[in-house]
Amino acid sequence: MKSKKTKNPVITLTTDFGYSYNYAGAVKAVVLSINPHARIVDISHDIPPFDIVSGAFALGTTYNYFPKGTIHMAVVDPGVGGFRKPILVETEDYYFVGPDNGIFSLVEQKSEVLHIYELNQKQYFLEHVSSTFHGRDVFAPVAAHLSKGVSADKMGMPVKTFEILEAFEVEIHSDRIAGQVLMIDGFGNVITNIDNGVFTKTLNGRSFTIHVKDELIQNIYRTYSDAPLLSKIALFGSSGFLELAISQGAFVNSVPVRVGDEILIEIGH
Amino acid sequence: MKSKKTKNPVITLTTDFGYSYNYAGAVKAVVLSINPHARIVDISHDIPPFDIVSGAFALGTTYNYFPKGTIHMAVVDPGVGGFRKPILVETEDYYFVGPDNGIFSLVEQKSEVLHIYELNQKQYFLEHVSSTFHGRDVFAPVAAHLSKGVSADKMGMPVKTFEILEAFEVEIHSDRIAGQVLMIDGFGNVITNIDNGVFTKTLNGRSFTIHVKDELIQNIYRTYSDAPLLSKIALFGSSGFLELAISQGAFVNSVPVRVGDEILIEIGH
Amino acid sequence: MKSKKTKNPVITLTTDFGYSYNYAGAVKAVVLSINPHARIVDISHDIPPFDIVSGAFALGTTYNYFPKGTIHMAVVDPGVGGFRKPILVETEDYYFVGPDNGIFSLVEQKSEVLHIYELNQKQYFLEHVSSTFHGRDVFAPVAAHLSKGVSADKMGMPVKTFEILEAFEVEIHSDRIAGQVLMIDGFGNVITNIDNGVFTKTLNGRSFTIHVKDELIQNIYRTYSDAPLLSKIALFGSSGFLELAISQGAFVNSVPVRVGDEILIEIGH
Repeated sequence: MKSKKTKNPVITLTTDFGYSYNYAGAVKAVVLSINPHARIVDISHDIPPFDIVSGAFALGTTYNYFPKGTIHMAVVDPGVGGFRKPILVETEDYYFVGPDNGIFSLVEQKSEVLHIYELNQKQYFLEHVSSTFHGRDVFAPVAAHLSKGVSADKMGMPVKTFEILEAFEVEIHSDRIAGQVLMIDGFGNVITNIDNGVFTKTLNGRSFTIHVKDELIQNIYRTYSDAPLLSKIALFGSSGFLELAISQGAFVNSVPVRVGDEILIEIGH
Repeated sequence: MKSKKTKNPVITLTTDFGYSYNYAGAVKAVVLSINPHARIVDISHDIPPFDIVSGAFALGTTYNYFPKGTIHMAVVDPGVGGFRKPILVETEDYYFVGPDNGIFSLVEQKSEVLHIYELNQKQYFLEHVSSTFHGRDVFAPVAAHLSKGVSADKMGMPVKTFEILEAFEVEIHSDRIAGQVLMIDGFGNVITNIDNGVFTKTLNGRSFTIHVKDELIQNIYRTYSDAPLLSKIALFGSSGFLELAISQGAFVNSVPVRVGDEILIEIGH
Repeated sequence: MKSKKTKNPVITLTTDFGYSYNYAGAVKAVVLSINPHARIVDISHDIPPFDIVSGAFALGTTYNYFPKGTIHMAVVDPGVGGFRKPILVETEDYYFVGPDNGIFSLVEQKSEVLHIYELNQKQYFLEHVSSTFHGRDVFAPVAAHLSKGVSADKMGMPVKTFEILEAFEVEIHSDRIAGQVLMIDGFGNVITNIDNGVFTKTLNGRSFTIHVKDELIQNIYRTYSDAPLLSKIALFGSSGFLELAISQGAFVNSVPVRVGDEILIEIGH
């Protein structure tokens, strides 16, 4: 672990607090009160309220661009005050602090998880923990103490697993990949849960057909502008996930796709 | 005062500038031009335009989570260019810089105010002061000079009081507390101006009845999820203020409450 | 150039990425991975999508408030993946990094441009450059390397000009200034492309008449509150550009002005 340690590492924030309230400010206040030298970077505070899938996607497609040692705090937390566990996940390069509700679903796909802790050491929380704002009262102080060098294993009790959302599960077989629709973006593009890495490795150069509803798509374009106007295409977006789109149009207006629908990639010979 | 001084303290910003314009960027530019080592933290730039009550609430429920020595700059300033004074308020732990229009109303409730200055020393302003953007031209340079160690009493002329908004005034008697509705939040919850500290100290364990319109509420819950479904409840939110809510519903849809309406807490024996 | 160099200069960001996605976070991640000591300041991430004029305005009216040596990165980039060049513009006090599509239009009006480079040295890009996200893959790493002291001339190939948008072009004659409507703001005020500096220097104390559609305006007020209620007025906003307004009203509701319409200032004797 020593290789990961850096002095005053970056702490990132991914939340659904919005920008109109003082919640993000309060989180930063607590971090800076404990570690005045912390460097805090917002990934987003505008994750749609309670939308854990979107939060997991935003964090999961960004975290590995940060310097080694970065502490990623994520709070999209509809179950605050209830039974979900507060956790700390440690990988070779990063720490993740937040509720155990699936917000860290993509971490395991991309990184080897070394340790998982249930946060239960109250000396690292604020003295008064409210029942509705664990971002400020639990996760911010834990992230701040971690950034000052308190070691992860002092923060909680080792546990074996953490929650992975079904939305991110992909079935991989030798002759097919079965994924699903993760999100529809603002342009009507369909973002699937099938990652470039999984796709390339499984296909290994073989031909393929993408099935979505009754549509078949057989080409992957490098960019929207390479595709014939108004044709239905597939491409890997900057996030690394397979997207279905219509060049200069909205895919969902032509094909009535919804979040959760199956995407099947049939692999040729 | 020496205990408060820290090297390059945090400067926080609470404004109604929004995120679509370059106003917040210009304020940060001026601060960094004067003190390149300043550490700037946004509380919010999305206070509803000209809504001093919301600005005072956002700042007033966040400022004391920041490290001692933090300089809080707040600019919700409908009277810019008119007669309102630019001020600097000094408490034991913090500085506050902004217009004297009530934006610092909650500071006096929570902290002992040591000094108030009317900012009139133009050598600490930008050379050209526009008539519409004192955030950039007056408050940012004052906050930056303060962060470099210029002492508060060099910045202006001592004055005796600063504006407190009526919206934050609470009448405290031995047998009742009379407050009012401060805001309605996005979920239809009613946020009152009655603070947990005032409530607990005044009641001192006695029973109570909360009157709002024709409704009576006699229990305070710790969290929404503790309350029976669709019952009208009171609780103290993460801000520390008394809130009226319906669990899984919108209080204002059941009881036609508006900002400014009286909230009376009758105290039993 | 040595006078400009500062240790770990500020890097500013002006983009249309919005705050709901992780794009701005990814850009910051890349910058911090290359230069962990970089200080990043948002000018805005909420420039209207693909609106290069608004981006150029936000950056162009803010950049010169930043400390000397600041690196300004701007990404409003509808042509990403196409033929527009990635460029680096160097002035006496600042660097500008972004697409060559007019986003730096106002830089030449206010600063002397010393060098322009087309970015073509791939060792300063991310290893894998996506076709849709040059903010993360090209401009962020270039800005970060620049902030670490790599000299601008190592980043690319000198070129002679960069794109200036027609929207910012102003014709200056001894007896008139011909500009145009740049933007309509949220209050219905008309923001023109005629700068205070150009105006003052050209008029040199002479009288003037502003023509817009069939309206004539002959006074410039210092502030909105100085003007008679509901009168049509002109004033220089905090950005330094000439604005047409109705005090307490919306100019565009009285005079049907649109973006691009001519504004003619006829100069008297």
